[in-house]
Amino acid sequence: MNALAADVGGTSIRVALVDASGGILERDEAATPQDPREGVARIASLWRRWDAAAPRGLVIAGAIRPGTGEITQSPNLRPWEGTCPGAELGCVVHNDANGALLGECWTGALQGCRSALMLTLGTGVGGGLLMGGTLWEGATGCAGEAGHLSVHPDGPPCGCGSRGCLELYASANAVAKAAGTRDAKEASDLARLGEPRSRGAFERAAEALGIALAGLANVLNPEVFCLGGGLSNSFDLLRPTLLRTLRERAFHLATESLRVLPARLGGDAGLVGAAWAAAHA
Amino acid sequence: MNALAADVGGTSIRVALVDASGGILERDEAATPQDPREGVARIASLWRRWDAAAPRGLVIAGAIRPGTGEITQSPNLRPWEGTCPGAELGCVVHNDANGALLGECWTGALQGCRSALMLTLGTGVGGGLLMGGTLWEGATGCAGEAGHLSVHPDGPPCGCGSRGCLELYASANAVAKAAGTRDAKEASDLARLGEPRSRGAFERAAEALGIALAGLANVLNPEVFCLGGGLSNSFDLLRPTLLRTLRERAFHLATESLRVLPARLGGDAGLVGAAWAAAHA
Repeated sequence: MNALAADVGGTSIRVALVDASGGILERDEAATPQDPREGVARIASLWRRWDAAAPRGLVIAGAIRPGTGEITQSPNLRPWEGTCPGAELGCVVHNDANGALLGECWTGALQGCRSALMLTLGTGVGGGLLMGGTLWEGATGCAGEAGHLSVHPDGPPCGCGSRGCLELYASANAVAKAAGTRDAKEASDLARLGEPRSRGAFERAAEALGIALAGLANVLNPEVFCLGGGLSNSFDLLRPTLLRTLRERAFHLATESLRVLPARLGGDAGLVGAAWAAAHA
Repeated sequence: MNALAADVGGTSIRVALVDASGGILERDEAATPQDPREGVARIASLWRRWDAAAPRGLVIAGAIRPGTGEITQSPNLRPWEGTCPGAELGCVVHNDANGALLGECWTGALQGCRSALMLTLGTGVGGGLLMGGTLWEGATGCAGEAGHLSVHPDGPPCGCGSRGCLELYASANAVAKAAGTRDAKEASDLARLGEPRSRGAFERAAEALGIALAGLANVLNPEVFCLGGGLSNSFDLLRPTLLRTLRERAFHLATESLRVLPARLGGDAGLVGAAWAAAHA
């Protein structure tokens, strides 16, 4: 059966009609209204052209309270906090990084995997946690937020209130800032040409990832760490230092069969995950 | 039904006859032989006086490969590595910190809890992870090792190969060393009298715990952090700085309903957990 999917980000809403094997048949996009009522109406309108009887799934850049579907926290969509868009749209609602994890599990890098931490290295660093074949949302819906594991506890202040969080080193934004470039893509292009400052920015990101993932390998002992988001297009630039740091710092037992993989579905992971969640609700 | 339990540590083997509600009916203790064959024979001999038909469970200070029960890593019982004591003894085998978690879930501080990280603050810092009501052993059996989350990545080298691990600050041994006392009990007595160096040692341990648990609150979002092991007798000395650091550094959403509790079963947690695992194998 086909499913209707929506991915609500800070700037745009993307919707898709997804088939029973996770393939995207049709897609559309619109600006995200700050007013959540307008947003819900826009999603309903975008979905209307497709199968009205299809199951529906939505992912959003925010924390979702398990059970109720309430958006409890969304730094980029503050007016949406406290709302339950799933109730009006008749759909399941997940955090977007959790959605990306589910998408990668269905048709991407995590097929057949039973335990994984997915990191989305984008504007910030989000994450999702798969344990024993099941998405672990956490007691209050904010599990997987590995971007806010402190890598350097006396480091610079983070927007979350802590200091030295992984996000400050390993997000696409952090890399662009450290490289002094417009965006991570430009930093990546320059790093491949050997430009020292851009190379250094990727080294710093990879080392921070290695430190954080070594600790999490010991605590979670997953089969896979999966890196998604824009920065995962530069996986080759991150890989050597990340793996070296991880192997130096984690238990041998925690890394003996551990795989570190780039995500495969790119920006569609959340839509595919939303469709999977819809079909399996 | 009663169960037979054994807890194999670096210096002693403790055994118990445990009733169907987790109460210890009888107990005994013997030195741990370095030779695992002697060890297995000793456990069998200690158990022999009790019900031969009872289910049997064993916990040991080491990493256990899920499924096979093989001891893959045990720094204090090197000759036991590669052996499967459960095969000869006809019993289930768990890591001792995982056993302590199961014990606390059954009759201790974690009764009714669905998600928790248990830390055992003893000679080192061990741990066990409960997710969705189930013990999460990890892909290769070393999940929960939060003692080897790096708190200060440029800190002193740790025996595990990494640097600045939580264990270097928050184990009973680390506190005694920082306090300049014979053991953590003496440091605790002095700290309660206001002796500055001992007070500082507990502050340092509490802050390291707060930094590590803040990151893990964001990643795991559990209901409870449970502190066991010898140092948990000084929970009152750790609590204020630990909670303050945790609240300052973790997402509000991750701490809104989070409880930080001392373990209740003391040194018996592993035995009780071994009996639970035996009865539920």
